[in-house]
Amino acid sequence: MARLVMKFGGTSVANVERIRNVARHVKREVDAGADVAVVVSAMSGKTNELVGWCREAAPLHDAREYDAVVASGEQVTSGLLAIVLQDMGIQARSWQGWQIPILTSDAHGSARILGIEGGEIVKRFAERKEVAVVAGFQGVHKETGRISTLGRGGSDTSAVALAAAIGADRCDIYTDVDGVYTTDPRVVPKARRLDRIAFEEMLEMASLGAKVLQVRSVEVAMVHKVPTFVRSSFDDPENPQPGTLICAEEDIMEAQIVTGIAFTRDEAQITLRRIADKPGVAAAIFVPLADANINVDMIIQVVSDDTTTTDMTFTVPTSDYERAMTILEGARETIGYASVAGATDVVKVSAIGIGMRSHAGVAARAFKALADKGVNIRAITTSEIKFSVLIDAAYTELAVRTLHSLYGLDKA
Amino acid sequence: MARLVMKFGGTSVANVERIRNVARHVKREVDAGADVAVVVSAMSGKTNELVGWCREAAPLHDAREYDAVVASGEQVTSGLLAIVLQDMGIQARSWQGWQIPILTSDAHGSARILGIEGGEIVKRFAERKEVAVVAGFQGVHKETGRISTLGRGGSDTSAVALAAAIGADRCDIYTDVDGVYTTDPRVVPKARRLDRIAFEEMLEMASLGAKVLQVRSVEVAMVHKVPTFVRSSFDDPENPQPGTLICAEEDIMEAQIVTGIAFTRDEAQITLRRIADKPGVAAAIFVPLADANINVDMIIQVVSDDTTTTDMTFTVPTSDYERAMTILEGARETIGYASVAGATDVVKVSAIGIGMRSHAGVAARAFKALADKGVNIRAITTSEIKFSVLIDAAYTELAVRTLHSLYGLDKA
Repeated sequence: MARLVMKFGGTSVANVERIRNVARHVKREVDAGADVAVVVSAMSGKTNELVGWCREAAPLHDAREYDAVVASGEQVTSGLLAIVLQDMGIQARSWQGWQIPILTSDAHGSARILGIEGGEIVKRFAERKEVAVVAGFQGVHKETGRISTLGRGGSDTSAVALAAAIGADRCDIYTDVDGVYTTDPRVVPKARRLDRIAFEEMLEMASLGAKVLQVRSVEVAMVHKVPTFVRSSFDDPENPQPGTLICAEEDIMEAQIVTGIAFTRDEAQITLRRIADKPGVAAAIFVPLADANINVDMIIQVVSDDTTTTDMTFTVPTSDYERAMTILEGARETIGYASVAGATDVVKVSAIGIGMRSHAGVAARAFKALADKGVNIRAITTSEIKFSVLIDAAYTELAVRTLHSLYGLDKA
Repeated sequence: MARLVMKFGGTSVANVERIRNVARHVKREVDAGADVAVVVSAMSGKTNELVGWCREAAPLHDAREYDAVVASGEQVTSGLLAIVLQDMGIQARSWQGWQIPILTSDAHGSARILGIEGGEIVKRFAERKEVAVVAGFQGVHKETGRISTLGRGGSDTSAVALAAAIGADRCDIYTDVDGVYTTDPRVVPKARRLDRIAFEEMLEMASLGAKVLQVRSVEVAMVHKVPTFVRSSFDDPENPQPGTLICAEEDIMEAQIVTGIAFTRDEAQITLRRIADKPGVAAAIFVPLADANINVDMIIQVVSDDTTTTDMTFTVPTSDYERAMTILEGARETIGYASVAGATDVVKVSAIGIGMRSHAGVAARAFKALADKGVNIRAITTSEIKFSVLIDAAYTELAVRTLHSLYGLDKA
């Protein structure tokens, strides 16, 4: 007997008619004999409305109260879907995060799931074939019993974590696209839908700009080895497409060298010029940034023109750019640099593929291809299964298309 | 140190600006040194929207799921009010029904409160002067842990029951009118706002058609002797009017003979003609109606023209009229009547006052006054502190005004 978790996002449950369509997808799986837990988001627009009210109530608001307010959106859809399923003759009941319970940390607004008590849901699968309709995005703090939420996109994480907790055979993430693509099809019309992608690759894709899944949900899927499909809720419920399977590396027969190209504009560049080239200077720069919870990503250090000093270039998230600049200007004495310059009109383009592990020179080919197109590379980072280049934002599309073709990802 | 419960209905929390106004009312009491628990309804219109979605999902829906959906409205306002209060520098936190908990029966959709654990709220009054913002209308089923709701207007009941549970000195019900009137001011412009009204009188007023408070909330206030004010949320928060106090009879110095005139159109009349005048015939009529959960209210029996049979007239709620007629037609053989006739264009007008206990002939004066105005009385019921007459709906305003003047209730 298959056991599965199906997750539907906001656009898939935007109104009662769409919720009925979701129920048809659930019915298909139930009719096929599966035990099903469904995780739902709030109706699209509802979370924004609720967040807007919280902001109107006070610009700086208690995250615990924010959570109580915004978690109500998922509560509504879970009840409505249960009603629609029952109306189709399917046993179903709604579960709020605190009812299961889905226990979380106390980081209200972006809580981490600490544990899920899936026993009762599983018992009801066996006893009465009851579909569990679970409010996504929310949980309850282990000690205080207050409602918590997992942050934007948290319903993906709810779904994958629930799948792990109840030992589901797979987790189907239904969304408004029909799978994971080699890159954003809006940028590269020749982008192809992938049949399979490894957890590690998907994690890098999501971290490096692909928006199809939340990073944390992929982490959870990877750690707990939950085979996860990304598929479309707008397919005919009677005859849906399979979508893209995110799975363990060993389940991918022939790994491509490069599986996908991701890009993100959420990166800003900072350059400190003419730093004394002596031990401890890196610490002088990066410790204050770390203390302020600013993640530094790409770092390159080059010898300055005068050969006795060095230039240091690195990137930070765009949202932390202003804060980082203020901190660095304040630390000018300690660091001892001549000038600081920054740029936010940059983009990080990345190529991801588990095949890189066993192939040398993959990045080098990219550098040459980009140079041939006149794209200047400002910084580079590499890891075992990806490399990233920082370039001027104006060259984004050109660079993405160049790499997409270079690694043979274009649709035939 | 005063301890009080303040309750605000849907129109008082219709948007964030109005919620801010509610917070100013709360602040006034907190600044005066009171320990405050606030009970809030859903933003006006929200409950109807949620109920509409449930109906769209399925005409016949699981009341437990309905409760999960509609309870979300109060969850939102409780969180928003807590945020606004904190923004004003007032310690506050929201409480959902299941967090307190407010334990209820399993009659989902119209559950009864079985108990409220007010200990933690009281502890926080003492420890940190924290305002408790409680989601009205909702509770949690004692055994299943599922969300329950108390039915329409249930927030009034939440407020009064909470006041009893935490031993509040009083419960202030803020609403869109500034108190309890001698009758509906839209019908009688000379209606006066009452300073005080006894629990028993308020209970009769609410039961007999006055809409200012839910009947159950008055019952709870009466049983637990919670002094309850009905007052306006639209008063200046700095300088509010006291409203009407609902209190024990002994706290009313000079009881009026008649305190108020109520009327309801929610009554239908049924007449069975020429019933055999023999023992057991009343049972033959009323037992089947009782079995169908139909409340019979006024009953009059008169000898028919032929003197060997009798006519029986009684009233049932308008919503049960069709069902009652079907049952009676089905029981024609057993009852043995010549014909059945019904009317829904009737209205029940009632005069209420604890002074009636010690004054004879109060109702008789009404019968004469109505007869003088040409108002035909179809049926009469009396009890210790009220009497009601059933009349043609066309005479409603005339009858209400006549009785209002007769008992000296007109504004000077």
